[in-house]
Amino acid sequence: MKLPKEIIEKYREPFISELGNYINSELEIIVKVKSKRLMENKNGQKYLLLTFEDKTGILRAIDWFNAETNDSKVNVGNIIRTSGKVVVYDGRLQFNLLQDSPVIVLKEGEYSIDRFVMEAKRSIDEIMDEIKKLIDSIKNVHLKRLLNEFFERDESFLKKFKSVPAGAKVHHNYVGGLAEHSSTVAQLCDSVCKTYKNLDRDLLIAGALLHDIGKINDYKVTSKGIEITTQGELIGHIVSGYEMVKVKVKKMKVPEDISTKLLHMIISHHGELEWGSPVVPKTPEAYVLHMIENMDSKLNRIFAIKEKELEGNPEKDWSDYDPNLGRRFYLKHELD
Amino acid sequence: MKLPKEIIEKYREPFISELGNYINSELEIIVKVKSKRLMENKNGQKYLLLTFEDKTGILRAIDWFNAETNDSKVNVGNIIRTSGKVVVYDGRLQFNLLQDSPVIVLKEGEYSIDRFVMEAKRSIDEIMDEIKKLIDSIKNVHLKRLLNEFFERDESFLKKFKSVPAGAKVHHNYVGGLAEHSSTVAQLCDSVCKTYKNLDRDLLIAGALLHDIGKINDYKVTSKGIEITTQGELIGHIVSGYEMVKVKVKKMKVPEDISTKLLHMIISHHGELEWGSPVVPKTPEAYVLHMIENMDSKLNRIFAIKEKELEGNPEKDWSDYDPNLGRRFYLKHELD
Amino acid sequence: MKLPKEIIEKYREPFISELGNYINSELEIIVKVKSKRLMENKNGQKYLLLTFEDKTGILRAIDWFNAETNDSKVNVGNIIRTSGKVVVYDGRLQFNLLQDSPVIVLKEGEYSIDRFVMEAKRSIDEIMDEIKKLIDSIKNVHLKRLLNEFFERDESFLKKFKSVPAGAKVHHNYVGGLAEHSSTVAQLCDSVCKTYKNLDRDLLIAGALLHDIGKINDYKVTSKGIEITTQGELIGHIVSGYEMVKVKVKKMKVPEDISTKLLHMIISHHGELEWGSPVVPKTPEAYVLHMIENMDSKLNRIFAIKEKELEGNPEKDWSDYDPNLGRRFYLKHELD
Amino acid sequence: MKLPKEIIEKYREPFISELGNYINSELEIIVKVKSKRLMENKNGQKYLLLTFEDKTGILRAIDWFNAETNDSKVNVGNIIRTSGKVVVYDGRLQFNLLQDSPVIVLKEGEYSIDRFVMEAKRSIDEIMDEIKKLIDSIKNVHLKRLLNEFFERDESFLKKFKSVPAGAKVHHNYVGGLAEHSSTVAQLCDSVCKTYKNLDRDLLIAGALLHDIGKINDYKVTSKGIEITTQGELIGHIVSGYEMVKVKVKKMKVPEDISTKLLHMIISHHGELEWGSPVVPKTPEAYVLHMIENMDSKLNRIFAIKEKELEGNPEKDWSDYDPNLGRRFYLKHELD
Amino acid sequence: MKLPKEIIEKYREPFISELGNYINSELEIIVKVKSKRLMENKNGQKYLLLTFEDKTGILRAIDWFNAETNDSKVNVGNIIRTSGKVVVYDGRLQFNLLQDSPVIVLKEGEYSIDRFVMEAKRSIDEIMDEIKKLIDSIKNVHLKRLLNEFFERDESFLKKFKSVPAGAKVHHNYVGGLAEHSSTVAQLCDSVCKTYKNLDRDLLIAGALLHDIGKINDYKVTSKGIEITTQGELIGHIVSGYEMVKVKVKKMKVPEDISTKLLHMIISHHGELEWGSPVVPKTPEAYVLHMIENMDSKLNRIFAIKEKELEGNPEKDWSDYDPNLGRRFYLKHELD
Amino acid sequence: MKLPKEIIEKYREPFISELGNYINSELEIIVKVKSKRLMENKNGQKYLLLTFEDKTGILRAIDWFNAETNDSKVNVGNIIRTSGKVVVYDGRLQFNLLQDSPVIVLKEGEYSIDRFVMEAKRSIDEIMDEIKKLIDSIKNVHLKRLLNEFFERDESFLKKFKSVPAGAKVHHNYVGGLAEHSSTVAQLCDSVCKTYKNLDRDLLIAGALLHDIGKINDYKVTSKGIEITTQGELIGHIVSGYEMVKVKVKKMKVPEDISTKLLHMIISHHGELEWGSPVVPKTPEAYVLHMIENMDSKLNRIFAIKEKELEGNPEKDWSDYDPNLGRRFYLKHELD
Repeated sequence: MKLPKEIIEKYREPFISELGNYINSELEIIVKVKSKRLMENKNGQKYLLLTFEDKTGILRAIDWFNAETNDSKVNVGNIIRTSGKVVVYDGRLQFNLLQDSPVIVLKEGEYSIDRFVMEAKRSIDEIMDEIKKLIDSIKNVHLKRLLNEFFERDESFLKKFKSVPAGAKVHHNYVGGLAEHSSTVAQLCDSVCKTYKNLDRDLLIAGALLHDIGKINDYKVTSKGIEITTQGELIGHIVSGYEMVKVKVKKMKVPEDISTKLLHMIISHHGELEWGSPVVPKTPEAYVLHMIENMDSKLNRIFAIKEKELEGNPEKDWSDYDPNLGRRFYLKHELD
Repeated sequence: MKLPKEIIEKYREPFISELGNYINSELEIIVKVKSKRLMENKNGQKYLLLTFEDKTGILRAIDWFNAETNDSKVNVGNIIRTSGKVVVYDGRLQFNLLQDSPVIVLKEGEYSIDRFVMEAKRSIDEIMDEIKKLIDSIKNVHLKRLLNEFFERDESFLKKFKSVPAGAKVHHNYVGGLAEHSSTVAQLCDSVCKTYKNLDRDLLIAGALLHDIGKINDYKVTSKGIEITTQGELIGHIVSGYEMVKVKVKKMKVPEDISTKLLHMIISHHGELEWGSPVVPKTPEAYVLHMIENMDSKLNRIFAIKEKELEGNPEKDWSDYDPNLGRRFYLKHELD
Repeated sequence: MKLPKEIIEKYREPFISELGNYINSELEIIVKVKSKRLMENKNGQKYLLLTFEDKTGILRAIDWFNAETNDSKVNVGNIIRTSGKVVVYDGRLQFNLLQDSPVIVLKEGEYSIDRFVMEAKRSIDEIMDEIKKLIDSIKNVHLKRLLNEFFERDESFLKKFKSVPAGAKVHHNYVGGLAEHSSTVAQLCDSVCKTYKNLDRDLLIAGALLHDIGKINDYKVTSKGIEITTQGELIGHIVSGYEMVKVKVKKMKVPEDISTKLLHMIISHHGELEWGSPVVPKTPEAYVLHMIENMDSKLNRIFAIKEKELEGNPEKDWSDYDPNLGRRFYLKHELD
Repeated sequence: MKLPKEIIEKYREPFISELGNYINSELEIIVKVKSKRLMENKNGQKYLLLTFEDKTGILRAIDWFNAETNDSKVNVGNIIRTSGKVVVYDGRLQFNLLQDSPVIVLKEGEYSIDRFVMEAKRSIDEIMDEIKKLIDSIKNVHLKRLLNEFFERDESFLKKFKSVPAGAKVHHNYVGGLAEHSSTVAQLCDSVCKTYKNLDRDLLIAGALLHDIGKINDYKVTSKGIEITTQGELIGHIVSGYEMVKVKVKKMKVPEDISTKLLHMIISHHGELEWGSPVVPKTPEAYVLHMIENMDSKLNRIFAIKEKELEGNPEKDWSDYDPNLGRRFYLKHELD
Repeated sequence: MKLPKEIIEKYREPFISELGNYINSELEIIVKVKSKRLMENKNGQKYLLLTFEDKTGILRAIDWFNAETNDSKVNVGNIIRTSGKVVVYDGRLQFNLLQDSPVIVLKEGEYSIDRFVMEAKRSIDEIMDEIKKLIDSIKNVHLKRLLNEFFERDESFLKKFKSVPAGAKVHHNYVGGLAEHSSTVAQLCDSVCKTYKNLDRDLLIAGALLHDIGKINDYKVTSKGIEITTQGELIGHIVSGYEMVKVKVKKMKVPEDISTKLLHMIISHHGELEWGSPVVPKTPEAYVLHMIENMDSKLNRIFAIKEKELEGNPEKDWSDYDPNLGRRFYLKHELD
Repeated sequence: MKLPKEIIEKYREPFISELGNYINSELEIIVKVKSKRLMENKNGQKYLLLTFEDKTGILRAIDWFNAETNDSKVNVGNIIRTSGKVVVYDGRLQFNLLQDSPVIVLKEGEYSIDRFVMEAKRSIDEIMDEIKKLIDSIKNVHLKRLLNEFFERDESFLKKFKSVPAGAKVHHNYVGGLAEHSSTVAQLCDSVCKTYKNLDRDLLIAGALLHDIGKINDYKVTSKGIEITTQGELIGHIVSGYEMVKVKVKKMKVPEDISTKLLHMIISHHGELEWGSPVVPKTPEAYVLHMIENMDSKLNRIFAIKEKELEGNPEKDWSDYDPNLGRRFYLKHELD
């Protein structure tokens, strides 16, 4: 039996960010252990200091009762289920473990990984609908057939495409990030074609939708977060994306003049050798794809920084220094 | 009396590119002297070898009759009016000066500078209409008023804005180039706002239309081509554009939170310090403006390269190496 | 009533660096709270661990009596007045708060900000005298008038010029730093003119005195230290300095050939695009200003490093690695 | 009938470098037209100035008899067969075309392309023997089988591998260059393994032999010299080499742990992103391959420069500046 | 009396890495004090928390008995001898100082510095033998004599050459590192000469053995680790190595054509100006030396990383990010 | 017999720049042959077109009488003595060789090399006087003695020091350039010490005078211009200057603390590794020397550009683009 989403959502354990609603209540939570430290006071009594986390925040916890037992049972990185009382201590929330409540270490499958990784804000179905509309709008039969071969008929591909992020840290670093990034880039390319009439719209949209698909091999989403795979480190999405498209253009018999230009777009989309493309863009379409793709990656990060900083402090004028983009960002609200 | 454009066009002297229609005819032309060389044959007779040019091409000419007189009268770079016969020699067109036709060196004002500088393909009126529509669509009253102060009421500004190029060599290097570039960038920014809803559209379009206006001080269009002015070398459009906008935001009393963000967009639009912006973009709008502006500059150059190369040889697969963009471009026609 | 400086100095509360003279005495201090931590021992008694700082150093403090009251009253970053006893603990000075002495959080204006920010070693009056002598030595009437318009008649400018630093971290990062840097650079430029006779001394000195004046908009000195303003982040001193000079050259009707060269010096003084100048120096004077300005900035930092390291340990041979200059410095005393 | 090599060699037309042996003789030559210019003397007689070339040098030629006919028959870049007399004029050899000898423009297939492109000094058979010995020495059955699949059984691959150069200009820019470079790199890798015992010799040699095989798609050797193909410009040998190996490892069922490391070596062999590798070497073997491959490329160029310069002038101490390597090379003979 | 190595090894105090064999035993150790902290519990009892280290690892220690006495006696960085009990606490080894065992601070000479610095894995005698064999194989009498002047007759040089490292942090950062690096590079150069016959083998091997000898002035090995000397910071091994060789080539009357090429190899061996060579390699031998030297430095680091990581966790797939080489390394065992 | 300078100057052959005073006269000149071309007119008569040059300019020449004889006698690069008539042809001066005047190729020693290389504008004696005054002003006896050992007692050094340039192309590229550069840098350093009181003036001046002395080994002045020597290419002035000073500090027993700091200044004076210093400046004096030395080098070039451009065209506003400094320079005269 598969429960409806609403039911699951209603009866799930609260997230850390929701515990403010439960002060002085006792309740059960599912969290990841971020750190632990066994302490001892003067007269030899042991207690266990813990930090818990899920995708919504972190939480200080203390176990006064089963410190040594739980210290040996639990490792940093474990996902656990336990009960405790939510209290306020030293101005912050704290979770005091109950005396008679065991700490249960959960195995993969016994908890939803969604508790520990961020997701795209928009639903994946909505994003996939956008992609399908874009494919439907393509006139060139070879490119349309090729795209459908990926987005209509390749179940294994689709499953991964819908779930992987488009980055581990810098941008679109959440479940569904690849789909969201691909769709946004394709939409922007579509807009750009309205201004530059002599761009090949079909080619540009096909390139936009396929440019990052190699990333389905690069990332692994676990309770530990987004990790880069061995395949991702040794080969990388530029080359594995090329290979995925090459296999399908052969299968679908896409004419070589089309397929070569499309494959060129895949491998040149980072724009410069030093950014990891083995060749630079040498067609207008490849050039536009690179520029638009780059803009979406950076904007996704900028908006994420603004959102996170203003959540923390709505009065803040400037973000902290972002080492990735090499600057601080101005946070003041926009014009009305 | 100001003649209608059609009349002027009809009765003007032919361009060099049109001389193929006049083989073996005698006619009058207005050209620039690109090079000259006084020659002497064995028996002491002098003749004058010349190369002429206008914006449509170059032309070999020879003066067998008044070589020494014309050699001392004419300097390289002069604009001249003269008559001759169009012949074919050694597989190319050649212009043989007539014996009894004097060479007249024209002064500025005696010829249309349009013969010697390239122009935007689209009419300047069409471009200005686009700009006006964009201004009309702006909702923020301060920004709309500010833009109208430039584009409606500042005649001196408008005259220059409509005529200067947006570059001396690399991109939009023709009369009307600044207006065309500004309009295209603003339209692309408008499109981008449809995808990223939390961009401040009014601010972005205002920044797009104003970002390069300092260029009216940077370039001087003469019969010698596009030259950089002393002001352009010593100050540059980034700073002089800032100053032009600053003077008007003070006059129009634009609130400081708006004007500072707008001025930041002007000076940060080159995107990186090493590309000449004294500060990098620190708002999403400044970042988008930089990316879009950069894309339009590069695409304008890429399309110009493709057009020029295919004009020369429609069968060519690859452009020559372009030192500015550091690559060759693929010229093959697009998909049907 | 304004007390004489000597009186103020005599009766002021001691600085942290002076507390070694008061061991085992009780006294009152004014300090900034750098960190605090509420602690609890086994039997539930709370105590408050604090770190204090002023411009002369840092100090460990402990409050055994009013821990919770003071913890809720005081925030990190507050300037406080309190009384305690100076003791030696674990080899270092410690300040034990007294039981019956309240901690008073001071507001801006209730304390002298001078306690918390460093100052130039030389008096600001001495520096301003040097600047005036340099202005007096200028022969070109336009430039002399322009400089006097800033340094004689613009009170609001002068007040800021005398107090702001010339940097937040790297060099001249203290009150009076801008004035000191400007004067030193102008003096060095004066010396250089004795060797290179064909430099325009008047122009060079004027450029030296004005090159960094935009920094009066870039920094804000508070008890938190030197902060970069929003204006400093979004516009920066290169462009705002240009604007300040441009406004005054218009007002004073400085001839354009002079003013353009002067303005060029302001915006090109960082020397290279990647160091934030939108144009590179294109006159000998602009080039010299850049080189001398750069040398003074670096030497100011090098001397500050040497001084600070040798203060800490007069026997040290080598400074720690300086990430800003990318090297260690040799500290050994110079030849006698 | 296929003639033996010796016969072909004996009866072939002489190369330009051999014409010094035929002064004042009449003979037939096969050359490429490098330039031509139709001239006219005072009394209207036309003559045709030509420059010929083959892989051994260039030659001035003149046609006094059929200037206009031949001018319209021959284009620059054509390969022609013609007869003339070898003379010495103005200190250099000159070829005077005979009156009654026609100029025949040859089509591809009517001449040996070998006349116009340089070849490796060592015979291709010798090089292939070295490669085979290296393959025989490999112990890992998967890698040995994979290599034999390329070097024993893939005739189409082998034909191209033996003939293409390893570069268009910089190094190994001659027929057989790829084979020579691959063999040399593999031998050096073999040597290196004797010093570093924990390198995986089989993997390293396999990577060395396969690292550049994608170059069979990058270059086209024609009478015009070595040209980069569209495939070479748009995809490049790094990615196409990866693809070639990937297809065969799948076919040969090479275990994934081996094949991934091998494929990583192919795509990382340029060593740095800015040199065109989409990933940097992350195994010791990939690192060694990059270093050795780089060394052989550079040394091949250095030795070619030394040889060419000393051929021109055996007394020369220093080569001309080499823009590719950014220096001059010392040419003095080595120690005895 | 000098004890045999085996005896010294047998009766020495255990290293930290060996303490796992002594759990719950009391024993004497010689360690360096890495950190210390005097603590006090509620009722005023003091205890001293310590961290010890030697070249094999670090160790937590606690002194419950003589905390204040030992706190004032011992400084961070001291080498001490003391006795205690090895216990397991909080999952890690801990060393509890005994009540009646004094802590003795050792002076230089009272302990073996070998306890605190790493050594080459291979014996220095084995390495020196390799070097001698290489020298014996040299045919050029001048170079052989020169090398013997260093490696046979200069005792003071030899003593330092055998003990200094070839780097402080990045590679060969252990006692004997310089000798090991020099020998390995010379052997690789020897191998390379078998492939490139026209390299001058004698010159190359001489350069390889001498290229880094200036490092005997750069490093000082103390119990604190490897430190850079003032000579190393202000002059550096490139220049001081040049000087050392120059003095000896003069003494040995090496002909100038040989010595200049040899000295060029010393100063150009870093390969690029930005890597610290004042000139770039301009002979094939100098170029090869640079490449091989660079490869050995990097490989030494890569193998050290692999070894250390797999020691820590034999199941690990990927090393941590190495900031020096800018990447992670794949750790999976090689093919069988 | 050595003639007084005035006599030599009076009776010397005129320079090319002086020929305007001899139009239509016959006279004898000494020039270098820059190019030659043997021509033939229709009726078979040969004539020889020549270009001559000396340090003051270039000159077109024609030999109508002994074309073939002189063509075979003279090579490009030869210095010749010949007679001819100065005429004006095609608006420029031309030198027509006389029928009965032979062309004499001169050997080294038969002409003054001064005709072909530029010299410092100031007399070398004046420059050496400045240097002596600076040495006299030094208080530290070791440094004074060391400098006198070079500048008073080392005749062989002094002879070279006075004549070599400080650069082949970029700056101080004329006879006496090294002395002029050294003196100017030392004077500027002297000035700088008046502002920064804690600089070690003696050390700084000694470093300034010695920093570039290695250049006496780098350049060779011949009639072909300034050439870099093999020593200059393979070792370079940074290292050879270090060696020269090291030899003398040993001889003069300069204490090591002084000599090490001085030697550090020599090798670090290029300021950055990528500019050829093997170590960066790590003392304030080394840092100042680098900055001042750099400034003088650049200013010398800038002033040379301005002078040369304004000589050519006093009305020019902007110099041509200078590839070495990467910009154009503003040429407008300075303020009065």
